[in-house]
Amino acid sequence: MFKINTNYQKLPGSYLFSNIAKKVAAFQEANPDKEIIRLGIGDVTQPLTKSVIATLHSAVDEMADGATFRGYAPDLGYDFLRNAICENDYKKRGCDIAADEIFVSDGAKSDSGNIQEIFSVDNKIAVCDPVYPVYVDSNVMGGRCGSYDPSSEKWSDIIYMPTTAENGFVPEFPKETPDIIYLCFPNNPTGTTITKSQLQQWVDYANKNGCVIIYDAAYEAYISEEDVAHSIYECEGARTCAIEIRSFSKNAGFTGVRLGFTVVPKDLKCGDVTLHSMWARRHGTKFNGAPYIIQRAGEAVYSEAGQKEIKELVGYYMNNAKTIRSGLEEAGYEVYGGVNAPYIWLKTPNNMTSWEFFDYLLENANVVGTPGSGFGPSGEHYFRLTAFGTLENSKKALERIKKL
Amino acid sequence: MFKINTNYQKLPGSYLFSNIAKKVAAFQEANPDKEIIRLGIGDVTQPLTKSVIATLHSAVDEMADGATFRGYAPDLGYDFLRNAICENDYKKRGCDIAADEIFVSDGAKSDSGNIQEIFSVDNKIAVCDPVYPVYVDSNVMGGRCGSYDPSSEKWSDIIYMPTTAENGFVPEFPKETPDIIYLCFPNNPTGTTITKSQLQQWVDYANKNGCVIIYDAAYEAYISEEDVAHSIYECEGARTCAIEIRSFSKNAGFTGVRLGFTVVPKDLKCGDVTLHSMWARRHGTKFNGAPYIIQRAGEAVYSEAGQKEIKELVGYYMNNAKTIRSGLEEAGYEVYGGVNAPYIWLKTPNNMTSWEFFDYLLENANVVGTPGSGFGPSGEHYFRLTAFGTLENSKKALERIKKL
Repeated sequence: MFKINTNYQKLPGSYLFSNIAKKVAAFQEANPDKEIIRLGIGDVTQPLTKSVIATLHSAVDEMADGATFRGYAPDLGYDFLRNAICENDYKKRGCDIAADEIFVSDGAKSDSGNIQEIFSVDNKIAVCDPVYPVYVDSNVMGGRCGSYDPSSEKWSDIIYMPTTAENGFVPEFPKETPDIIYLCFPNNPTGTTITKSQLQQWVDYANKNGCVIIYDAAYEAYISEEDVAHSIYECEGARTCAIEIRSFSKNAGFTGVRLGFTVVPKDLKCGDVTLHSMWARRHGTKFNGAPYIIQRAGEAVYSEAGQKEIKELVGYYMNNAKTIRSGLEEAGYEVYGGVNAPYIWLKTPNNMTSWEFFDYLLENANVVGTPGSGFGPSGEHYFRLTAFGTLENSKKALERIKKL
Repeated sequence: MFKINTNYQKLPGSYLFSNIAKKVAAFQEANPDKEIIRLGIGDVTQPLTKSVIATLHSAVDEMADGATFRGYAPDLGYDFLRNAICENDYKKRGCDIAADEIFVSDGAKSDSGNIQEIFSVDNKIAVCDPVYPVYVDSNVMGGRCGSYDPSSEKWSDIIYMPTTAENGFVPEFPKETPDIIYLCFPNNPTGTTITKSQLQQWVDYANKNGCVIIYDAAYEAYISEEDVAHSIYECEGARTCAIEIRSFSKNAGFTGVRLGFTVVPKDLKCGDVTLHSMWARRHGTKFNGAPYIIQRAGEAVYSEAGQKEIKELVGYYMNNAKTIRSGLEEAGYEVYGGVNAPYIWLKTPNNMTSWEFFDYLLENANVVGTPGSGFGPSGEHYFRLTAFGTLENSKKALERIKKL
């Protein structure tokens, strides 16, 4: 008789965003006349840029002609895209990363979830708290997290590193040494980040203690301050301890297009074994390349026109962030993030729980956000709003919130 | 200190197709004037069809306009595509499958590799021998296969079911009862298949013994004979024991477009737990949906024009298959497959090993095929040619082979 992977059964109930969707649907049904503004999920709303659209069309045309048709892509990505990424995201920033250390994929979520597979089950992971849920959930599925305690909302074998207003949202080195450290800066959900010298300390810590850092830099395009690293490879020594995951979703609006990449430097080793060779084997066995037309669209993002367009796109969302942030401040809220990231993280008023504030905001302002507690226990009493809506809706939402 | 998943280190050397590519490159370098014909890898050569191209263009246009732009797709697939699949691939064949039992993905290779994750590590798998390498390799990575014996080319904990000319390429029920049975019909690499009543026996066996069948039907569009099932759900009782994996790669030429799906019926359970809920959780956590424009292209395949076009496409490749098969027969080879599948499986002449025949064919006819031993020990002394080339090249290759 076949047996299932019982780790799946340890995962508590349904997913954060499903719960939100259910609550919103119930409210809308009870109040059909109310216009709900959604600033919850981190999904973009602006269309793809001109260069990307033009490139998609021309790549589609190539697929219509036997002479230019492309079948299976190289598992690890087309050279044209790996070279463009290498040149623009790494060489231009002085990072020592080679094109063949870049693995093109169907997005940062897949890579964030799959990367744990190449590590032993008995590694101990450390995560910031609150954090993007995929890191923890994928490790639970992989059997790495022990048991879940519903009262503390924590897993017995995970090392939590709280990031709250009290420590300025900068995680502290944990008392117990982890094997794998997930870091996401600029951070989802807090919208805050750390300085380059603080990141350097993490790289030094990892190298000293034999840890791997899995660095999720999906929001790097939103960095506006000077002393913040866009890539962990700006830090000295990162080649021997860090894997970096990147996305086209937030800079170029590819959430529905699906393209991302992961960098695994060849100097990152366990004994004689390079993690590069392991990730290559994983990619080659369980993935069949990102679609040709979409890899071409990714390349277009790096053209001169493409770069100008995504700067405008990011600028549009960051203007929303400013609108939301300053509106909340005017309304007397304690607000974080929104400067180097498209997320605004606010402290709930009057010691409301995150879910109480969710209901309060939905019922009284008809605005949907995300309860901070959904991202981890230290997210309790916080709340996330995203800047990915339209400017009009961002303004309208804040007008309503100010009137509460 | 972090530790790696040591199961990866058990995998022998590099991948079959990399070895072939190296040999071909070396031959071409030594013989720059020779025109090599590639009938090795199962990659298509004909362009996408008109309906698909038109739909891709219009979906790209939707992504250019804020009013029709689509961000994150539903994790499990857009309803328009799930409904089209349900109606055309299942309801029309009398299969009792609901649209919400269909999980849209970026391709059958990913699903074939990932599906083992939802099962316990201590399940025992059975595979046909020879077989598509992903089933075994992904289970090795998952820690399910024991140790590899280079002399027998077998894993200690895998149950091998030989399919050779001796048993008419029909696997026999294994002596030891497996937990998970991988079946692929029409088969890659042998190009042969089994009848619907033979498949029914497997379904009955699985239900009786508490096994799950993972049924890879990537080549169903090539079935030309009446008594062959296009879906395992044509068999009675399959809803309680079978998962089916399907692809748009071979019927519609989507190898470089990436689209597939997996069917997990809600009646397939381990105790109270449905595998449907587990695969949904896996999809929702570690995958972010197939691209909108590509799901629209998939839908176009099911339009009236789309169906007509793919029949022509499949007909084109099957005409190649016929050309190759009859050419080989004329040349005196013992030939299998090519009737319900785009693969021709031949017995090597004069008891040559598969790799000896590979070298012989490359050097003397400048034709590239795939050594049967690369698909498993029982593939030794066999050789695979694919019908996915052009008609011109298929004819030319056979002219050369006939002259040997």
